Amino acid sequence: MVEYVEKQIKKVDVWKLKTYVCKVKPMDIFTGKNIIVLNKSEAQEHDIYSGYRTEMRHDGRSAVVIVDVSDEIVEPGEVGVFRDLASWHKLKKGDTVEIVHMDRPESIGYIKKKLDKEALRESEIKTIVKEIMQDKLSEIETSAWITGAYINGLSDEEIIALAHATVESGEQLNLGKHPIVDKHCIGGVAGNRTTMVMVPIIAAAGLYMPKTSSRSITSASGTADTMEVLSNVTFSIEELRSIVLKAKGAIVWGGGMKLAPVDDRLIRIRHPLSLDPEGMLLASILGKKKSVGAESIIIDVPVGRGVKVPYVERGNELAKHFIRIGDKMNMKIEALITDGAEPVGNGVGPGLECVDVLEVLQGSGPDDLRHKSLLMAGKLLELSGKVDRGKGYAAAEGIVNSGKAMAKFMEIVELQGGNPKLKVSDIALGSYTHTVTSDAAGSIFHIDNKTMSKIARIAGAPRDKGAGVLIHRVRGDRVDVGDKVFTIFAESEAKLDFALKALKDLEPIEMRKMLLGSVK
Amino acid sequence: MVEYVEKQIKKVDVWKLKTYVCKVKPMDIFTGKNIIVLNKSEAQEHDIYSGYRTEMRHDGRSAVVIVDVSDEIVEPGEVGVFRDLASWHKLKKGDTVEIVHMDRPESIGYIKKKLDKEALRESEIKTIVKEIMQDKLSEIETSAWITGAYINGLSDEEIIALAHATVESGEQLNLGKHPIVDKHCIGGVAGNRTTMVMVPIIAAAGLYMPKTSSRSITSASGTADTMEVLSNVTFSIEELRSIVLKAKGAIVWGGGMKLAPVDDRLIRIRHPLSLDPEGMLLASILGKKKSVGAESIIIDVPVGRGVKVPYVERGNELAKHFIRIGDKMNMKIEALITDGAEPVGNGVGPGLECVDVLEVLQGSGPDDLRHKSLLMAGKLLELSGKVDRGKGYAAAEGIVNSGKAMAKFMEIVELQGGNPKLKVSDIALGSYTHTVTSDAAGSIFHIDNKTMSKIARIAGAPRDKGAGVLIHRVRGDRVDVGDKVFTIFAESEAKLDFALKALKDLEPIEMRKMLLGSVK
Repeated sequence: MVEYVEKQIKKVDVWKLKTYVCKVKPMDIFTGKNIIVLNKSEAQEHDIYSGYRTEMRHDGRSAVVIVDVSDEIVEPGEVGVFRDLASWHKLKKGDTVEIVHMDRPESIGYIKKKLDKEALRESEIKTIVKEIMQDKLSEIETSAWITGAYINGLSDEEIIALAHATVESGEQLNLGKHPIVDKHCIGGVAGNRTTMVMVPIIAAAGLYMPKTSSRSITSASGTADTMEVLSNVTFSIEELRSIVLKAKGAIVWGGGMKLAPVDDRLIRIRHPLSLDPEGMLLASILGKKKSVGAESIIIDVPVGRGVKVPYVERGNELAKHFIRIGDKMNMKIEALITDGAEPVGNGVGPGLECVDVLEVLQGSGPDDLRHKSLLMAGKLLELSGKVDRGKGYAAAEGIVNSGKAMAKFMEIVELQGGNPKLKVSDIALGSYTHTVTSDAAGSIFHIDNKTMSKIARIAGAPRDKGAGVLIHRVRGDRVDVGDKVFTIFAESEAKLDFALKALKDLEPIEMRKMLLGSVK
Repeated sequence: MVEYVEKQIKKVDVWKLKTYVCKVKPMDIFTGKNIIVLNKSEAQEHDIYSGYRTEMRHDGRSAVVIVDVSDEIVEPGEVGVFRDLASWHKLKKGDTVEIVHMDRPESIGYIKKKLDKEALRESEIKTIVKEIMQDKLSEIETSAWITGAYINGLSDEEIIALAHATVESGEQLNLGKHPIVDKHCIGGVAGNRTTMVMVPIIAAAGLYMPKTSSRSITSASGTADTMEVLSNVTFSIEELRSIVLKAKGAIVWGGGMKLAPVDDRLIRIRHPLSLDPEGMLLASILGKKKSVGAESIIIDVPVGRGVKVPYVERGNELAKHFIRIGDKMNMKIEALITDGAEPVGNGVGPGLECVDVLEVLQGSGPDDLRHKSLLMAGKLLELSGKVDRGKGYAAAEGIVNSGKAMAKFMEIVELQGGNPKLKVSDIALGSYTHTVTSDAAGSIFHIDNKTMSKIARIAGAPRDKGAGVLIHRVRGDRVDVGDKVFTIFAESEAKLDFALKALKDLEPIEMRKMLLGSVK
């Protein structure tokens, strides 16, 4: 049967025969996708229909493009090229391009294998990542890949292959022979800006920490959004390298550079269904860490109501998985299971979070943010071998108390183009505010991450840097009628109004009560 | 815990507060999707980004739309509306529409349940189908639903719910108290035009057979493409009803009417990965049959190399599954496992297949098409109770030999707007032909469905009705050097040339040989 099987697998490029030539008509539409518009009748003649992917060739270069068709806006012999594609490929009106049928992506067979519960080889996973980067896979196909990985799981070997392919999908930061460390948080906790406290502590201790952070997708602020209050965060890899070689630390936006770029494409597909296949999460995070050369890494795994990991037991499993994969990729990992049920710090929103961070670096600030940051920085100092086991927390605290962490932070702010003389009082907060007070006496049972984040977002965060929520109380606090509980900040009256309207349907603070419900 | 859970589930329409108003700027681009273009900065102000789905409201109506953004082609206060959407909603330049944040589709939670291997309730499946029809689910989400159903399977209860939801997704054909029968083929066999022979036999026998067929997606011709050589095939449900009430039979394009329309949307997503979850296949086919009121149905399950079902055992399982689900939906089903390894009939391509059908109806024509059609028609006569078990084949043969089937066919052709006096010699075939002859003596071992279909398609089928392949030999035939094997027909020299070029890389006919391969 050997020969038959080979014959069926043999690929025949018969459609390639149908190449045709068009002249470019630029169209000013931005879509974030490589879209071309072909004349409908002419495209049909070549067996090309709306939604097809084809190759467009010009001047020795080739792009995978998605086809729209129209009988009116493009004549036969013309191809409408959307703005993103035209600028990317430097195409101008009248340029001649070739439209060529695209091969069926090789990955489709491998995705099908995963759906059929077969193990994928390293080369197959690399092909999937490569073809996603080449834009050869549609959203339909990529969604099937992620769904397959979610349902059928990825083996450790597959995760490692995916992590390496993630590294290879982009550029890498080469800092030379320095001790490089990093941290990552699984996310979901409002106001959790430990990164901005940890990086200066670690850098002041002499380790290199080239931290890349994300912007918010649905929350009130990402670390990159918050850091942006104080400095630029968009840098090239070369610029990041230069900052880190000077200051030993940096806090930049990861999406601004080409580190592990396949990850951004996958996140866009994973996001609508909140699909986080564990193997992809691990490959994504550890791939990014590998891309910056990190050797020792602290992973923050917040656990509790409303965050990704609901129970400690599950947190422990995930932690062990991180350590196992990290080990096989030559990275030392320690995962900390942290209480993630409530926001960390007082502020939720870029400007308010900056206030918290600066205060902590000055030795005051919210207890929870201070304690968590010192704990994590201490563990990282221990993990990297910089200080002995059990002495990390005190070392981190010493660096903050000596003022070295604050000085280091301002050095980083300056290298990233910010004002190193900036004070807490210089941070502009929204001037439209509303303070919510307690309408009953009792004790605070729960402050909800997602709800607080939602209110801050409706008030304008993260785009309006001064918008957000300042929480005056923590869980367990006793309050009396009329006590301040939280204050909403907005940069316009309209947005404050949006937030107040939303508040009517939301319950960001729950008071303790005995009767939780009655089931009949 | 009851109350907490309820609180977390409670949906808050806070984004709805952010409704904004725009004036329509029509844009002449056809995309097959509901796309609008918003001013980028203005959209951001309202937390709307490229790729988001939002609601657009106008004049009491509402549409779910996909957002593109541009700073240049639309000013703040304008919304670019693509042609399909504008004409569908009768929007013209300057009309005022409201842009409203859309709720997260309810289905997303149910899709996630399926991914997590939980059983779905009937109401949950109905919601998924409803939201697909409302265009509320993106391709990413629909792909996850299909992938989940593929990997985790659908229970009989889920399949039945999906079949009923499929029926309810569209309109239904109501023929009153007549005995209604139908047939369906799983597909994959080139030239397999049994429907066009069966319908007139069954209708001539006094049963009602309102057959809806598909057009080709990737093959050389679908039954609707082939029937279109002789008559119209695009009718409304009312028109179909009127034809069937007169002639008892019809052969029309199913996509032209609103029977089970959700199916077309699912097929578009299933197609790129060739994902055919068995449960969806059953729900789709039986939902369509239920939509036309069929009571007795013959299912043709072709088995063999290169078709969907490779082995008889697998065919038997699928057949039993059809019967089980049909039984619970009050439809009597008999599934026939047929030899599907080679094309049926001599012609592949619309015109050539019509020639085969007309010849069979006149009592001659290719043996395989004649035999298979009579067998299936006979079984359907038996299943419906019209004739006794064991006497169906002879009854069907009698109807053909008496000329009644041919007369009935021409009656249907006329009612569908065709010429009832048309003869075989009137069918226009491509005038550019090339005949492939044997370059060796031997016997024919295999004629490949997919390859023959591909050659016919490259030669222009199904759009060029006269294009296709005429196969002169069947499996097992002995041939000598120079004997004609098959002839390619095309309507233009260029297309014949495409097909000949393609032929160099294809092997549509395999000769018998002893040594099949050598493994070292």
